[in-house]
Amino acid sequence: MPARRLDEVVARFGGNLAGNGNLLISGIATLEGAGPEDLSFLTNPKYRNQLAGTRAAAVILAPDALPACPVPAIVTANPYLYFARVAGWLHEAKRPDVAIHPSANVARDAVIGRNVVIEAHCSIGEGAVIGDDSWLHANVSVYAGCRIGARAIIHSGAVIGSDGFGFARESDGSWVKIPQTGRVIIGDDVEIGANTTIDRGALEDTVIEDGVKLDNQIQVAHNVRIGAHTAMAGCVGVAGSAAIGRRCTVGGGAVILGHLTLADDVNVSAGTLVGKSIPTPGTYTGTVPFLEHREWLKNFARLRHLEAMADKIRALETRLAELEKRS
Amino acid sequence: MPARRLDEVVARFGGNLAGNGNLLISGIATLEGAGPEDLSFLTNPKYRNQLAGTRAAAVILAPDALPACPVPAIVTANPYLYFARVAGWLHEAKRPDVAIHPSANVARDAVIGRNVVIEAHCSIGEGAVIGDDSWLHANVSVYAGCRIGARAIIHSGAVIGSDGFGFARESDGSWVKIPQTGRVIIGDDVEIGANTTIDRGALEDTVIEDGVKLDNQIQVAHNVRIGAHTAMAGCVGVAGSAAIGRRCTVGGGAVILGHLTLADDVNVSAGTLVGKSIPTPGTYTGTVPFLEHREWLKNFARLRHLEAMADKIRALETRLAELEKRS
Amino acid sequence: MPARRLDEVVARFGGNLAGNGNLLISGIATLEGAGPEDLSFLTNPKYRNQLAGTRAAAVILAPDALPACPVPAIVTANPYLYFARVAGWLHEAKRPDVAIHPSANVARDAVIGRNVVIEAHCSIGEGAVIGDDSWLHANVSVYAGCRIGARAIIHSGAVIGSDGFGFARESDGSWVKIPQTGRVIIGDDVEIGANTTIDRGALEDTVIEDGVKLDNQIQVAHNVRIGAHTAMAGCVGVAGSAAIGRRCTVGGGAVILGHLTLADDVNVSAGTLVGKSIPTPGTYTGTVPFLEHREWLKNFARLRHLEAMADKIRALETRLAELEKRS
Repeated sequence: MPARRLDEVVARFGGNLAGNGNLLISGIATLEGAGPEDLSFLTNPKYRNQLAGTRAAAVILAPDALPACPVPAIVTANPYLYFARVAGWLHEAKRPDVAIHPSANVARDAVIGRNVVIEAHCSIGEGAVIGDDSWLHANVSVYAGCRIGARAIIHSGAVIGSDGFGFARESDGSWVKIPQTGRVIIGDDVEIGANTTIDRGALEDTVIEDGVKLDNQIQVAHNVRIGAHTAMAGCVGVAGSAAIGRRCTVGGGAVILGHLTLADDVNVSAGTLVGKSIPTPGTYTGTVPFLEHREWLKNFARLRHLEAMADKIRALETRLAELEKRS
Repeated sequence: MPARRLDEVVARFGGNLAGNGNLLISGIATLEGAGPEDLSFLTNPKYRNQLAGTRAAAVILAPDALPACPVPAIVTANPYLYFARVAGWLHEAKRPDVAIHPSANVARDAVIGRNVVIEAHCSIGEGAVIGDDSWLHANVSVYAGCRIGARAIIHSGAVIGSDGFGFARESDGSWVKIPQTGRVIIGDDVEIGANTTIDRGALEDTVIEDGVKLDNQIQVAHNVRIGAHTAMAGCVGVAGSAAIGRRCTVGGGAVILGHLTLADDVNVSAGTLVGKSIPTPGTYTGTVPFLEHREWLKNFARLRHLEAMADKIRALETRLAELEKRS
Repeated sequence: MPARRLDEVVARFGGNLAGNGNLLISGIATLEGAGPEDLSFLTNPKYRNQLAGTRAAAVILAPDALPACPVPAIVTANPYLYFARVAGWLHEAKRPDVAIHPSANVARDAVIGRNVVIEAHCSIGEGAVIGDDSWLHANVSVYAGCRIGARAIIHSGAVIGSDGFGFARESDGSWVKIPQTGRVIIGDDVEIGANTTIDRGALEDTVIEDGVKLDNQIQVAHNVRIGAHTAMAGCVGVAGSAAIGRRCTVGGGAVILGHLTLADDVNVSAGTLVGKSIPTPGTYTGTVPFLEHREWLKNFARLRHLEAMADKIRALETRLAELEKRS
């Protein structure tokens, strides 16, 4: 990475320079880890006490932190976003030299865009389409007919277009498979994490809109639609035909049941089971606190008896009202 | 797909024809998505209002929906099952031309049945057995000695026969690995989803019986037995030595702990943690509702104090009984 | 496996021999499954009633079980650990003949130790390091720059070093990717389960210390540190920058949120969401019991109204105190 002058950074990304703009920076690092050629950043007030001791060349920070900063600074209203932009510029990801690795298995009629990287042991099915500048890491499987937009990043072990889980039951309890004839359609600028799976639709398509970011080990069932710029953390499960709005965030390990709708700008907390539609933007949570195991045993056994507790309270209220009337 | 006459469908699959049997159909589609050459279906009362506006050639439906149907219909007691059978007939899955892809790594002594498809980058270990007509999608790993029955469908990234998680603890806290010398034995007509993992047994075998359907990203630990025709939705985890009955269903994200038994015909709801055996058929649930985040903060903190609440109710009952005696 | 004399076992692993040391054993099996040439073991009191009927040559057991044992025995304080050691000796895992499978894609500058096995369709990125005696099963992906210590066992589908999930948000809701420039550093004697994913750090490294055992389908986010000899069961999710102590155990399906700390020797129960730091060793649980579905409906709806229940109890206490004062 070539060294950059601090005023070159400010000229490119904005913000106010406080201090010497001639300084050279050649990397980005945390306040604790930074050396004298690194640009650092303060985005979390929790780390503010590290400011005094930093060895960084300069720090990206919000106006209120400037007085406490012992070195030159770039002052901006959103230091985290500023840091992201600068880091992306300084550390552009190094792409492999070989565009399509010879061990990748790409169907003859698949349509591969310009400047696409397909790493070792990927498999691209018949009629699949991969947009320009996309990058598939090793061991990605894309089934027949699926479409991936431009600038996708897909991590190892991800599976796009496997059959949705659709079966009808015979009277003897055995299952008849329903052919999954839809596709997976993925927009532009989507990132998909390692070992994430996205099933093809049953009759219509599973749709991932532009700018969606999916972490590792997420399961997206058939006929789901995920709105633009929604982000999901690791291990989320989304059941069939759920329609999730735009700019939503879903915390790790959350489960969204099928055939329901989430409005735009809904935030689901980690570990929450979403069992009905959410028509209103906001943050929604449904998890239980943990306790030391013996405390948990005593308290949580009560969950089987909440109705009885409510009945007892009602009975007390009736008896007390009776006494009060009499006294 | 060749066009079929409606009366040909009824001759093959039964049901009562209401309307013109000469109609030609060439596909299956939802009520909303169907065009004039499609057969559609009404299986969920929620979509009944779409019946009036459908452009479908004909609709598969239950007797009570017939009066509201503006086009020819096939009347049957179980429209969903009927739809599944017709769809499977019309859309028979297109298998790759090459039976065993040259990039697949199949151990010399593995036994591969007739008409098996093994796609790119699969790995089949020593002594493994794959039954007739089975289809392994790209990037499936089958470890040594595992047996898969006939007509299996195994999706990309699935791993069959990895070591179970078995360790004994030394007094210093370090772990001694217990060799996992059992196998995975899978019956006929089993479907296994993308990135699902099934561990080999520790001494005896992990067993998946006939007709079991496993969705994506399911984890089945060592020495588990899953009874015939049981179906599990995505992201389920089954811990070691659990014995699950026949014809069970397990909802997405549920966790079944180890060394316990589920009777036949048990249904476990999505997100439920099964911490003890279930000896009786039925539906079992253990999840918490979600709330707007501030409401959740106020309510769920109480979970740490349920025992105290019960104590207070008891104290109130005692004091009130005392007052009642006196008055 | 060659036959071994019972006294040879005792000479090697200790314990007290009760009975004929000349006996030959050629395998290890459960009490129920053992034949006359098998060594068996009793580690779980639940199976003690199987002792009388066993056909095993001999049994590893604790002193209190000896009187009930009808065959020769090896008496030891920790039969499970003893069994693990003997089993590991008798059943040494058979390694493939080919060290690095020709289909594996190993970057030219990767450093591969002595006696390493890399199975089919693995991918080892630039500058990665794999320690002596490690074994990577088929379809493992190791990204550039990651380091794996000696004697690792990594199961199929595992992904080491994929990008962490790091994005900053633009004002329009879209996301700016933060380059993930750290690595994954894995110590010695680590086992990693099938389809487990470990993300590289954002600026610093993700660290897995010596002797850690990870089961299948675990997700470890960027910048996590897992202390030596910690073991995690299947489907656990660990969010970014969590610091987990040494010798911890984490049950299946648990979720550990980000930026928090677990002390050494913490045990987290299966299915528990850890939402704050745990500074004290012990066992911690936060799961709800399951109920027959109709019972669940009645009881768990109350969870939305716990605060109201607490208010009612408080009101009853006030009214009752008032009455008591008067009477």
